[in-house]
Amino acid sequence: MAPGAVSGKSKVTIVGSGNWGSVAAKLIASNTIKLHSFHDQVRMWVFEETLPSGEKLSDVINRTNENVKYLPGIKLGKNVIADPDLENAVKDANMLVFVTPHQFMDGICKKLVGKVNKDVEAISLIKGMEIALEQLSEATVGYRENKDIAENWVQLFTTPYFIVTAVQDVEGIELCGTLKNVVAIAAGLVDGLEMGNNTKAAIMRIGLKEMKALSKLLFSSVKDSTFFESCGVADLITTCLGGRNRKVAEAFAKSGGKRSFDDLEAEMLQGQKLQGVLTAREVYEVLSYRGWLELFPLFATVHEISIGHLPPLAIVKYSEYKPRLSLVCKL
Amino acid sequence: MAPGAVSGKSKVTIVGSGNWGSVAAKLIASNTIKLHSFHDQVRMWVFEETLPSGEKLSDVINRTNENVKYLPGIKLGKNVIADPDLENAVKDANMLVFVTPHQFMDGICKKLVGKVNKDVEAISLIKGMEIALEQLSEATVGYRENKDIAENWVQLFTTPYFIVTAVQDVEGIELCGTLKNVVAIAAGLVDGLEMGNNTKAAIMRIGLKEMKALSKLLFSSVKDSTFFESCGVADLITTCLGGRNRKVAEAFAKSGGKRSFDDLEAEMLQGQKLQGVLTAREVYEVLSYRGWLELFPLFATVHEISIGHLPPLAIVKYSEYKPRLSLVCKL
Repeated sequence: MAPGAVSGKSKVTIVGSGNWGSVAAKLIASNTIKLHSFHDQVRMWVFEETLPSGEKLSDVINRTNENVKYLPGIKLGKNVIADPDLENAVKDANMLVFVTPHQFMDGICKKLVGKVNKDVEAISLIKGMEIALEQLSEATVGYRENKDIAENWVQLFTTPYFIVTAVQDVEGIELCGTLKNVVAIAAGLVDGLEMGNNTKAAIMRIGLKEMKALSKLLFSSVKDSTFFESCGVADLITTCLGGRNRKVAEAFAKSGGKRSFDDLEAEMLQGQKLQGVLTAREVYEVLSYRGWLELFPLFATVHEISIGHLPPLAIVKYSEYKPRLSLVCKL
Repeated sequence: MAPGAVSGKSKVTIVGSGNWGSVAAKLIASNTIKLHSFHDQVRMWVFEETLPSGEKLSDVINRTNENVKYLPGIKLGKNVIADPDLENAVKDANMLVFVTPHQFMDGICKKLVGKVNKDVEAISLIKGMEIALEQLSEATVGYRENKDIAENWVQLFTTPYFIVTAVQDVEGIELCGTLKNVVAIAAGLVDGLEMGNNTKAAIMRIGLKEMKALSKLLFSSVKDSTFFESCGVADLITTCLGGRNRKVAEAFAKSGGKRSFDDLEAEMLQGQKLQGVLTAREVYEVLSYRGWLELFPLFATVHEISIGHLPPLAIVKYSEYKPRLSLVCKL
């Protein structure tokens, strides 16, 4: 049994202290202080930095109760303790919340081998949300079998302004999170072509349908109902209204496909790669390998447009695809 | 057998010649001329008007092939014949497409009693779309039992830029069309409160879920899959992005609820009543009568806000509703 659980209370450590990590800490700390099944204290591992003032970031967080660099102006709660020592930060925890940038996860996990409690539970928060300002937002916690563990996490995160739901469909939730970025590219193309809300809504719906159909083809366990959760239709809407995938695709279409995605990424994202374009390529490879290209005209078309084989306008030329679409409809 | 069907070919008449009626005529005429199962000619009943030039509207349409008043600049197709005589326009038809404003339907139907063929099929197009410019758009044809009849209508409407799907769920489709306006009010309130896309997407998703749950409670025949069709998620998105319900609700929230919907309707809609507000009241009455108010916090809250019993901000205060929401999730 983990030390944190000796008393029967769960002890939470946040691994990461960027913008979204700090938001998670604030939100979780407001719950652990209220709920009897959690230790009040929440430890937050801080990748140490020296601020322009010469002070250490972790010291300033502990003194001011604010992450002055990544979430200025928001009090984290006095029960949040910043800790620059990763090993020390996790050693007593029996619930770990990972909120570091994706590319650091690998290195961090390697450092944690043998350092965490055997029965530790972990959750990964992939995307940021605007909830530090206490505006209504939502999230989905995926789980495989143990509903109690999932409900414990739900308890930890739920606040009056943050609705969290446990869904027994890990694959469905993860595929929603990945595939929505491809649909966002399609939505951005429609924006760039200035085709209006009807067309955009149609593309988003067809995208949602392809997300569902592909997920179910890949994993028979995937449930239709998952796509009605926040990870499905709500995240899709958010990503297609805002988001960098949509934005860069809009610029791509405005240029008539003359500027490449590589080019626009370099300019608009300082060289970071666009998730939706990478995912569209991976999806295309899977579809191609399995002989499913004709079943997923939207996904296929996004990739073909992104590599310059089709013009941006192809995203709304579904005439030739109509018979294919009806196949997807049956899934 | 209807005269139009003697040859085995279907004969189509459009009842109505406003903006959307003219769009429907153009779209249908482009199909009847290509499909062997339809007569080329499409008759369009025109509510006769005298134009400023002194000419009759129907004469000008037949001369120029354009509805110069309601769809200027768009050729309807030479096989569209404008006919100001309702009885004459329908007498040979075996497929009727109704596209008049809602309030005229009653009078028109009374005039048609005994004047139409016994085996005539009819369809009603309730909402307008932006397809005259040939931008990709979608629609759903609902049917009860006869899939062949539904597919015949699908054939008549489908074009490369207009994706039409037949769905065996009349009640589901109609409830989507009605209830989405209540969700649009909620989305407009979020816009007025300037709460951002995450919150708006969350509200739209919760609204979609309540739409599905209420439809299924009212009619056990309603299918989940209907909400993935264009009548479901796509229409909902369109209505929550644009649309008058959203717009007036935004203004209402911006005023802090100080100006009434009646007032704003008078100013912004020249006194026309907002569909979403009327529907919210009807839904509230049904929920109240059946003891379901707690199951549908979003629908209930929209009504309570619209009559001034709750402030606009109540739309995102779901804390007290959380236990209720989880009930809806099970439906």
